[in-house]
Amino acid sequence: MFEELLQGVGEWLKGRGPDSDIVISTRIRIARNLDIFPFPNRISTSEADKLFRNLQEAAGKSKTLKQLKFFRMEDIEPLDREFLVERHLISQEHALWPKNKAVMLSEDEIISIMVNEEDHLRIQVIKSGFDFVTGYRLASKVEDEIARKVKFAFHSDIGFLTACPTNVGTGLRVSAMVHLPALIITKRVNKILEFVSKLSFAARGFLGEGTQAIGNFFQISNQVTLGLGEEEIIDNLSSVIRQLRRQEIEARRYMMTKFRYSLEDRIWRALGILKTARIISSQETLQHLSLLRLGMDLGIIKGLSKELLNNIYISIQPAHLQKLQERKLSHAERDIIRGNLLREKLGGISV
Amino acid sequence: MFEELLQGVGEWLKGRGPDSDIVISTRIRIARNLDIFPFPNRISTSEADKLFRNLQEAAGKSKTLKQLKFFRMEDIEPLDREFLVERHLISQEHALWPKNKAVMLSEDEIISIMVNEEDHLRIQVIKSGFDFVTGYRLASKVEDEIARKVKFAFHSDIGFLTACPTNVGTGLRVSAMVHLPALIITKRVNKILEFVSKLSFAARGFLGEGTQAIGNFFQISNQVTLGLGEEEIIDNLSSVIRQLRRQEIEARRYMMTKFRYSLEDRIWRALGILKTARIISSQETLQHLSLLRLGMDLGIIKGLSKELLNNIYISIQPAHLQKLQERKLSHAERDIIRGNLLREKLGGISV
Repeated sequence: MFEELLQGVGEWLKGRGPDSDIVISTRIRIARNLDIFPFPNRISTSEADKLFRNLQEAAGKSKTLKQLKFFRMEDIEPLDREFLVERHLISQEHALWPKNKAVMLSEDEIISIMVNEEDHLRIQVIKSGFDFVTGYRLASKVEDEIARKVKFAFHSDIGFLTACPTNVGTGLRVSAMVHLPALIITKRVNKILEFVSKLSFAARGFLGEGTQAIGNFFQISNQVTLGLGEEEIIDNLSSVIRQLRRQEIEARRYMMTKFRYSLEDRIWRALGILKTARIISSQETLQHLSLLRLGMDLGIIKGLSKELLNNIYISIQPAHLQKLQERKLSHAERDIIRGNLLREKLGGISV
Repeated sequence: MFEELLQGVGEWLKGRGPDSDIVISTRIRIARNLDIFPFPNRISTSEADKLFRNLQEAAGKSKTLKQLKFFRMEDIEPLDREFLVERHLISQEHALWPKNKAVMLSEDEIISIMVNEEDHLRIQVIKSGFDFVTGYRLASKVEDEIARKVKFAFHSDIGFLTACPTNVGTGLRVSAMVHLPALIITKRVNKILEFVSKLSFAARGFLGEGTQAIGNFFQISNQVTLGLGEEEIIDNLSSVIRQLRRQEIEARRYMMTKFRYSLEDRIWRALGILKTARIISSQETLQHLSLLRLGMDLGIIKGLSKELLNNIYISIQPAHLQKLQERKLSHAERDIIRGNLLREKLGGISV
């Protein structure tokens, strides 16, 4: 399943969006619930089936939704579910407990709708680079097209109702994945993230909530959705992201001026290890890839594209490795196969 | 000075000798004193001059000695003296306190005679590989040719007299430089060196007495010269070296059977770092080079010759780097130039 996705990366990882050197991607997520069904934690299988039918009917009549493919999560093998998590299309929870759940996916991996995750609908749009505007426009369009056929749970005082109170109101969560190696190397990042958190934004790791900030990636998102308008939420986060990007650029400039040799040394060694390791963990790989990305951004490493690099990030993950090998792999085997894959993908990059 | 030596390596580093995979080189050193002069620590400048003249006269009439070039140490710049230390042709002491001292060198760097080091004469012959026999034959020939023209201090009961009692008797010290990475990785080396030391042999580092065993090299030498014949000394050491070599081979076989992947991983990563580092210390370089040598011996790294590898070992040392750059270099500059040199020398080796 999903073989057509395996070799490449989603549109959002092709590196074509604005400022996609530092702001890898932006994500819009809208939570909605239908007023005729209980929340997903209490929904029955027959009700879930009815919800699925409603959505498929709505999709059939909508230009945008028609292009989405519908899958019941229970029809997807565990490895393939994990594969979708690694591609950032569904949450870990959605993969682990498939009962009464479904997902709708666009071929280019820009739109995904989780059905019966925490809420009936989690509409997600991911865009390459710093691009909340077109992302939000598309997510709203998807929401509108669904709203034509179903009625959302809505309270005139507080807005859209959701399973968790933190989402009540707009149901909107916006986030950006930012790459901040220079702020980490120069040890400025903690201060900056404290400031981000004081403004009620959350900073999380590579795979979202609960994951660690490995590989110098941070996912910055709004925490509050109640009492703020959609535009306000997006404007506030945009302003934080703009500042982070500026600070990261400044830290890079500082490093290039003050200790260029030792920075180049770290970058080249990272490439050297990635091109030679025979056993390499996912965590170690992400650390080196971060330096490689920095080297590419600074023009130190030539011949590398954002698309190739993002492709590597995605491909070295466990489910991807196992799908590529078409068999289950032990932890130890994965570390070997990961090395093989890295050498293959980086074969054209000269040391 | 010594520009003709700078680019290449001495005959003993070309890797042509027997068993030169593990036994890099063997060294014969004969200490002798002339009976008409005080020991070097008490010799006057006029006496030293006379000693130099005597030696040069002896050399002029001898087939072997005629080929040696004679240098007063005071005529050699400090950097060039350090250069000779790095090529293992003279001791650190000989370089640091040049007064009343001289050196005689063969062009192929097999023979060197330190004059007025601790003894009047320290005749040294270095051969590639495990080859005490031809080394000792050559050193004896040199000694004989000098003995035709001068009279050595000799006591019929105890043998040749030397400044330090540990050299009295035969004045013979034999040593071998062995490369024991597998014994170190498998943590067997300490036990083995204890055994070596119980047999009254000394194990020292890369640059002889007082230096550390960096880069997995050990210099094994006899401690006792009194009360033993020359042949006995050489036989005993040969037997120890043979055992060390056997144990190292066994440890390599063990690693290749039991954890081949992780061994290959270490070896390839070492090459990766050597081919990419922009700043690298001498000590770090020696560690990686040791793994590279092991990889070459095991057929894992292709296209590398012992001569190239030995050339790198010699060239990355401080005095060599400075002579190559034709200027004084700070410690930080050396670490950069060393990286450049490594990349240049290893350019032809594929990762």
